[in-house]
Amino acid sequence: MAVRTIEWRNGSVVMIDQRLLPMREVYRVFRDHREVARAIKDMVIRGAPAIGVAAAMGIALGARSLRPGDLSRDFERLCRGFAATRPTAVNLFWAIQRMRRVFTRNQHRPIDTLRMLLEREALAMHDEDVAANRRMGEYGAALIEDGATILTHCNAGALATAGYGTALGVVRAAREAGKRVQVIACETRPFLQGARLTAWELKRDRIPVTLITDNMAAHLMQRGKVSCVVVGADRVAANGDVANKIGTYGHAVLAHRHAIPFYVAAPISTVDLACARGDQIPIEERPVREVSHVFERQVAPSGVKIANPAFDVTPSELITAIVTERGVARQPLGRTLARLAAGTASVRAARAERKPERRREARKERRH
Amino acid sequence: MAVRTIEWRNGSVVMIDQRLLPMREVYRVFRDHREVARAIKDMVIRGAPAIGVAAAMGIALGARSLRPGDLSRDFERLCRGFAATRPTAVNLFWAIQRMRRVFTRNQHRPIDTLRMLLEREALAMHDEDVAANRRMGEYGAALIEDGATILTHCNAGALATAGYGTALGVVRAAREAGKRVQVIACETRPFLQGARLTAWELKRDRIPVTLITDNMAAHLMQRGKVSCVVVGADRVAANGDVANKIGTYGHAVLAHRHAIPFYVAAPISTVDLACARGDQIPIEERPVREVSHVFERQVAPSGVKIANPAFDVTPSELITAIVTERGVARQPLGRTLARLAAGTASVRAARAERKPERRREARKERRH
Repeated sequence: MAVRTIEWRNGSVVMIDQRLLPMREVYRVFRDHREVARAIKDMVIRGAPAIGVAAAMGIALGARSLRPGDLSRDFERLCRGFAATRPTAVNLFWAIQRMRRVFTRNQHRPIDTLRMLLEREALAMHDEDVAANRRMGEYGAALIEDGATILTHCNAGALATAGYGTALGVVRAAREAGKRVQVIACETRPFLQGARLTAWELKRDRIPVTLITDNMAAHLMQRGKVSCVVVGADRVAANGDVANKIGTYGHAVLAHRHAIPFYVAAPISTVDLACARGDQIPIEERPVREVSHVFERQVAPSGVKIANPAFDVTPSELITAIVTERGVARQPLGRTLARLAAGTASVRAARAERKPERRREARKERRH
Repeated sequence: MAVRTIEWRNGSVVMIDQRLLPMREVYRVFRDHREVARAIKDMVIRGAPAIGVAAAMGIALGARSLRPGDLSRDFERLCRGFAATRPTAVNLFWAIQRMRRVFTRNQHRPIDTLRMLLEREALAMHDEDVAANRRMGEYGAALIEDGATILTHCNAGALATAGYGTALGVVRAAREAGKRVQVIACETRPFLQGARLTAWELKRDRIPVTLITDNMAAHLMQRGKVSCVVVGADRVAANGDVANKIGTYGHAVLAHRHAIPFYVAAPISTVDLACARGDQIPIEERPVREVSHVFERQVAPSGVKIANPAFDVTPSELITAIVTERGVARQPLGRTLARLAAGTASVRAARAERKPERRREARKERRH
């Protein structure tokens, strides 16, 4: 059975705790929106599309305790709580913006109706995400040759989305189309999403997978053992630059040197037309303990200086194609993305209204 | 005080157990040559030059229990025990060859004299290694600019040698020459030599160091935060291709893309003129548990397929210069290395006599 990454169940949000995988499969039940925000920040749930759905469900949960009065102010505070959790993945802001629109249009209606509409929107986003992943999978599978060995980084699978996955959705769809494909999963230090989540998720689905440390990718490419690279994205700039898990840029440079196609699979909600270039994307700096410790085990000398940028930016020129649920964007990526994203109300809205958040993040960024 | 990586003390070999660093500083005393061979295989000691010295001391230790009779056969068995420990670092075979020469020349002499001469040879190799590192440091320091940020991979420091270090010897010499330099240490999965050993060794010497995961190097280079890369080597082929810890090749490709100088610091004993190109160097495949576990902590699903090549090969064309104790080899590396290594009796001898070992390693290699 497919893993249930996040669900709305009887007025609560249920998530598998991804920090405990692969050793323990624990589902957590959240009844307070602050706990959901904390779960996003602490990476109980992660992956750009999954974060978006979690924020939407968290807001729907928070809306249950809204009282008539300063409704608008309280709702805005609720949204800001989620906007402050993680700065890089744009799906978070996109999801918050969709919830804001539902609120704005319906705040005059009875509060029970408003709550129901917010809940319905969050559930719609969940289902739309799975549907988008399936369409992305179909488009992406056409790019994969029979017998391919696909290298992937981090986890852009069912666990990073509402289900099925973006990069791993492409893998799943290729197999459903009868292609024999196998995956090389990079472990993805420091948080080990590749070792803990991708290897677990693929093994569970009986998809052949070989785990490596991140620094082995170059050697395997040199020896001709990688057919293509497929990764997800946390934010795609208007020119096609892609922010994704730290290490992605390195893989892209290596793929380029070895003439290996480099694909990004990401829903349109990940495209940020308001962001012209990748160097404008805020890069989250995470706690140093993620590097100095592996789970509870200390691996570096106490007090040593550590850097922990959680994402990097792959320039558009290194990307062969971006697979979206509306089709495959090829070079020049900027132009194709603009066409694919055109008419997305949410994209336009997000562009107009996300500016205050971006300024706050930029300030936070400088403090690191 | 400088760390004592390996010492000969009262007829025993003493090593710091590098598997326990940085949390515990434990020195192990070996009185049996088989234990020394096991210590090399299990990475109590590691680093190409240190492995060479350990093998020489191990052979000197083994010689103490040689009895007249089948002296030659027993000595050869002793040597083969060490040759079977690790296949990639050529210093191991070079060291064994030096011990063999002393044996061959002196096997007719009284056994006590023979033992004493073998012990003296092992101690000479220890001291020569420190001296070579210091000369390498002087040559290398001239390449480093004041204010430089030097990225290094794995540990090519005092802990990888008899003392001072190769890559970190260059860093130490640059500081002794009054240059303000700082180091970015890549943690070096799976065995974490960067996090556990390089960070520890530099912090102990108050040399500014920032620890990162291996996959952050690309991002830091892109943001202009790396002045040059300096690494060690486990074997340098005649054409200048360099086998070094897995991940080195990736850093070289990245440095090339960002026009960052890429230096290798290695003693002449690491140059294998009998090996024409890097693709002829046997690459050790190590136990999968090094990837699936961090210390005792399991981080990957049980039973998942894992690859664990311990080294990779950086092609000569990506290397700016190789720093040796005889001077700096620049492009074309092959020609310069041949000149620097010329007249090294040990190099000639190793070339002639290491062939049987190489065939055995190649067979082992295929079995993986």
